[in-house]
Amino acid sequence: MMKLALPGGIQGFLTEYWQKKPCLIKGGIENFVDPLDANDLAGLAMEAEIESRIVVRNGEHWDVQHGPFEHFPTSEKDWTLLVQAVDHWFEQSSELMNLFSFMPRWRIDDLMVSFSVPGGGVGPHLDQYDVFIIQGEGKRRWRVGDKQPLKTQTPHPSLLQVEPFSAALIDVEMEAGDILYIPPGFPHEGYAIEAALNYSVGFRAPSGRDLLSHFADLAIDEERYNHRYGDPDLRVREHTGEITLPELNRLKSNLTQIFDDEATLHRFFGLYLSEAKHELDLAPSEPEYDVDEVQQLLEEGAVLRRLAGARALYLATVADTLFVDGEAYPMPQAAAQTLADSDAPDPALLAAQTEALVVLTLLINKGYFFFEEA
Amino acid sequence: MMKLALPGGIQGFLTEYWQKKPCLIKGGIENFVDPLDANDLAGLAMEAEIESRIVVRNGEHWDVQHGPFEHFPTSEKDWTLLVQAVDHWFEQSSELMNLFSFMPRWRIDDLMVSFSVPGGGVGPHLDQYDVFIIQGEGKRRWRVGDKQPLKTQTPHPSLLQVEPFSAALIDVEMEAGDILYIPPGFPHEGYAIEAALNYSVGFRAPSGRDLLSHFADLAIDEERYNHRYGDPDLRVREHTGEITLPELNRLKSNLTQIFDDEATLHRFFGLYLSEAKHELDLAPSEPEYDVDEVQQLLEEGAVLRRLAGARALYLATVADTLFVDGEAYPMPQAAAQTLADSDAPDPALLAAQTEALVVLTLLINKGYFFFEEA
Ligand SMILES: O=C(O)CCC(=O)C(=O)O
Ligand SMILES: O=C(O)CCC(=O)C(=O)O
Ligand SMILES: [Co+2]
Ligand SMILES: [Co+2]
Repeated sequence: MMKLALPGGIQGFLTEYWQKKPCLIKGGIENFVDPLDANDLAGLAMEAEIESRIVVRNGEHWDVQHGPFEHFPTSEKDWTLLVQAVDHWFEQSSELMNLFSFMPRWRIDDLMVSFSVPGGGVGPHLDQYDVFIIQGEGKRRWRVGDKQPLKTQTPHPSLLQVEPFSAALIDVEMEAGDILYIPPGFPHEGYAIEAALNYSVGFRAPSGRDLLSHFADLAIDEERYNHRYGDPDLRVREHTGEITLPELNRLKSNLTQIFDDEATLHRFFGLYLSEAKHELDLAPSEPEYDVDEVQQLLEEGAVLRRLAGARALYLATVADTLFVDGEAYPMPQAAAQTLADSDAPDPALLAAQTEALVVLTLLINKGYFFFEEA
Repeated sequence: MMKLALPGGIQGFLTEYWQKKPCLIKGGIENFVDPLDANDLAGLAMEAEIESRIVVRNGEHWDVQHGPFEHFPTSEKDWTLLVQAVDHWFEQSSELMNLFSFMPRWRIDDLMVSFSVPGGGVGPHLDQYDVFIIQGEGKRRWRVGDKQPLKTQTPHPSLLQVEPFSAALIDVEMEAGDILYIPPGFPHEGYAIEAALNYSVGFRAPSGRDLLSHFADLAIDEERYNHRYGDPDLRVREHTGEITLPELNRLKSNLTQIFDDEATLHRFFGLYLSEAKHELDLAPSEPEYDVDEVQQLLEEGAVLRRLAGARALYLATVADTLFVDGEAYPMPQAAAQTLADSDAPDPALLAAQTEALVVLTLLINKGYFFFEEA
């Protein structure tokens, strides 16, 4: 079984590096085994629902093509194939993803996988999110620079790079099982030395704008915050074309008082952050389970799994609610906890929570949870 | 010339009634003259750009049709024609609108005009906005009830009414020049006794939701508020499926810190509140004026007018800026003031503000301001 070996243990890693500085973890995954090979990845890149791209470098020129692909470059150098959300589509990648289950689940985004032939890479760039880049098969040279002002450049309309950076904090030839952790904003670049697979466990960190615009969408959908501007204390004034400072302040408080409604805000966070950024490979149960069957299977200790990529979350402040993929479901807190916290929810606990079973059956029938084949 | 005669003067009216209680102002407009007649209104209702509807009552049944109209009901009772934003399209209505120039201009919405045959009306209802309903030609009985819990009913999908209310604060047969002021939320109904014209000067009061969703649109357009959630202090924990309270608080502050940016917020208020809710009758100058011509005309004392319905606003906190119809224009503060405050901006002041003239010429050429024919 693969095992994560972080420097100083998990807490040590978080304290020293997480969101602070990049770090190379040689042999960070013990007993590493590639969950897929280049052919598997090419197969995924042929599917229309799966986001993929091929980046080719020709000296100073860069070309980007977007999948689905029918053919792949025949050249033996300078290209890379990148596939998003491989964890959603390729069940065997869940063992690798589950190594990172110690992280708050709402912070984890997806598994991006790249296959690069020698010289292949996406060029120097920086990301807005933390990433663990895991080296699989093959060898790749990775360089990570310190945070620094760097001009952005777009050698191709869909390729955002930064100018080359010289000093490197990390400059390494990575081998299978090595992990490179990079916090947001640190420039990095990787070029394959031998044909190489790289696995990027990406994180999710909403921006103020993301939260604002999605919360506004919820306010519109739910027709909330109808309170209107009022001015019963209005006085005659000379400057009728002005929006006066007291009026601006009142408009502002009319807007910001919305955020006093923490109940809705917290529910929003649950809904929004439980929605996967990438499409899920959702297969409804066929035939459907009924509640008794689900209870019996749980009593027999059947292993329940969450659909790879599906997000289940709960909040202490919105009790008895499980947020799954942008929806809120009533669910006793103990059941919500095991369903959201664990990669193998506790069947005995769930079997005993009769109030949980109707909703759990629904979630299984929708395809968010499934019983592992014996 | 028409003249407004409010009880206790304007300030007296504001103190006693504005946003507090309805009031009937008998003879509120001295020397009242209808700015249009039923034929003019019917003509407007035939235009595709102009929002109009006809409401017909058949005993308990109500029917609503939306314009533009080619024909009008021939029946002599129980229908009413309502046309929105008549001030935008019918220049002669500006004298009536200008009676209300003492109000903050950003609060004023539009002039809705109705023509009703005996028995005609829209039924009992309440509005979210203040309104001055002015009686023109003809006679109409108006009743206004106190704020009270009333069931809503929709006798037709596009007709929102409330159940009939019995006790009335005001029950009056209105005659030409009478004004009925109704604050938001007070139920009212009017039925014509003789074929009648009514002029509704309506107000605008953004809801929290309006402000939120339009501000979110601006944040998206301008790609603002990119700051992302961060958790460099993250610690290992048991419940990885939970969004913890500290995380919820941090997400909340990531969202609400947006509103610390008062510069953008104030600019947003200027942009949003200067945008008319209804289409403007915007006619670009043909041929275009050049700056010297505009200056000369102003020096000669030509009378400059704002396009009816167009909104020009300024803010003390966003200096040297005139907000017109959802756009911000650089404009020296004194020029912005006369252009926004006055129904006849000061030509001498503007002629002397050479820095104002380029933008003013642009605004004239776009059609937001025009020189009154001598
Ligand atoms: O695998 C690659 O080529 C790109 C990986 C990367 O830059 C990332 O995951 O941030
Ligand atoms: O003129 C009408 O029939 C409706 C007027 C009215 O209810 C209003 O302006 O609020
Ligand atoms: Co990257
Ligand atoms: Co009304």
